Amino acid sequence: MTELYFSPARPDKGRLAIDGTEARHICRVMRHRRGDRIAVTDGAGCEYGLELESVGVDRVIGRVVETGVMQREPGHRLVLAQAVLKGDKLEQVCEQATELGIRALIPLRTERTIGRLAERKHERLHSAALAGMKSSTRTVLPEIEAEHDLAALARRAGEFDQVLVAYEDERGVGLADVIHRDARSVLVVVGPEGGFAAEEVETLKRSGAMSFSLGPRRLRAETAAVATVAAVLQMLGDLG
Amino acid sequence: MTELYFSPARPDKGRLAIDGTEARHICRVMRHRRGDRIAVTDGAGCEYGLELESVGVDRVIGRVVETGVMQREPGHRLVLAQAVLKGDKLEQVCEQATELGIRALIPLRTERTIGRLAERKHERLHSAALAGMKSSTRTVLPEIEAEHDLAALARRAGEFDQVLVAYEDERGVGLADVIHRDARSVLVVVGPEGGFAAEEVETLKRSGAMSFSLGPRRLRAETAAVATVAAVLQMLGDLG
Repeated sequence: MTELYFSPARPDKGRLAIDGTEARHICRVMRHRRGDRIAVTDGAGCEYGLELESVGVDRVIGRVVETGVMQREPGHRLVLAQAVLKGDKLEQVCEQATELGIRALIPLRTERTIGRLAERKHERLHSAALAGMKSSTRTVLPEIEAEHDLAALARRAGEFDQVLVAYEDERGVGLADVIHRDARSVLVVVGPEGGFAAEEVETLKRSGAMSFSLGPRRLRAETAAVATVAAVLQMLGDLG
Repeated sequence: MTELYFSPARPDKGRLAIDGTEARHICRVMRHRRGDRIAVTDGAGCEYGLELESVGVDRVIGRVVETGVMQREPGHRLVLAQAVLKGDKLEQVCEQATELGIRALIPLRTERTIGRLAERKHERLHSAALAGMKSSTRTVLPEIEAEHDLAALARRAGEFDQVLVAYEDERGVGLADVIHRDARSVLVVVGPEGGFAAEEVETLKRSGAMSFSLGPRRLRAETAAVATVAAVLQMLGDLG
């Protein structure tokens, strides 16, 4: 597959409509024509093979000739809670973690987080997730949740089989020591540039989280996030 | 440790000199004074604890009060051969892979690589490696090798216990299936934006390389590189 389009619409009588920028892209950039076959995902796990019936700059309509569910998705539900980062680094992390396979991103406000998540930034994170989903040909668009503080995150621990916190002051406990390979849903938590305060990790641990070290080298937050997501998916058997 | 400085100089009669931009940084930015303690690495595995004896904007001299070898370094020699990427993406990969722990970067020219590695770019890769070494407090500065083509890379396979190629058309063989956990030195090879051509992977395989898949999701080259380095270090027990 070379290109995957996105349309949240549902098929109606075996036909699917694509509007907006995706329609424009199909029509003007890719210059598809009636009779061409394209693939479209609804970002909620469904993928449709369409045979195009009409191609307009504002609306493309195709007949559904194939349907798939959760194509190319990891078997595990991995959610990343990442402290808000400076500049566009959180968008970078969001796009890369989406390619790798996260199901949702929870932006996190921590003691050492600089700045809050502006509404505009929230939209940019959504765009980064959309770009990551399309480029990786995933069929789930990760949800960008509202900004959480540590207490709110701790209250959600029960939704996951396991909560893992990358903590730079952790010594001697690696990911391999804490990960449950039979967990179906995992929340991984990565801090800001300045790391977590000890009491923040304690708050998470009281709700059942386990902390681990990424080793003695000090990783920038964006490197730690992508490395953690990759390492967790690798250990769960979801990276290849 | 909060800050690690770099000086390729060797101690002479128990004293170490730091020149250039590092001296300026110690003097002007960090405003260190005689009697302060700092840590310096030579980028070749040695780390010195210095008690400063004189602090000038062009030259800082300290007495060596502590010496360490290969502090915070991975136990395995991991080298990344990465196809040259567009824009500054290869520098990004170089810096992140350095933080994670690679020992050297081999820029690779492949069939689908766009552009060659200009001299200026080679210097930028060196700067990215230096930044990554310092921010991660590593003590080995990864060597940025000359640009290789696939045939030249294949001829070097014998220098490593194992050569692993991330190949997007590989099916059903993951990293866990091919990695030798007792390998002491591993070369990982990651392609350009458009991936490797089949015959390029064959060339590497004839020299003993094994190809593996990072899964059914299509990863951008920079995501594939960082994810591969993280996953390999994780599996070798070097990520924490």
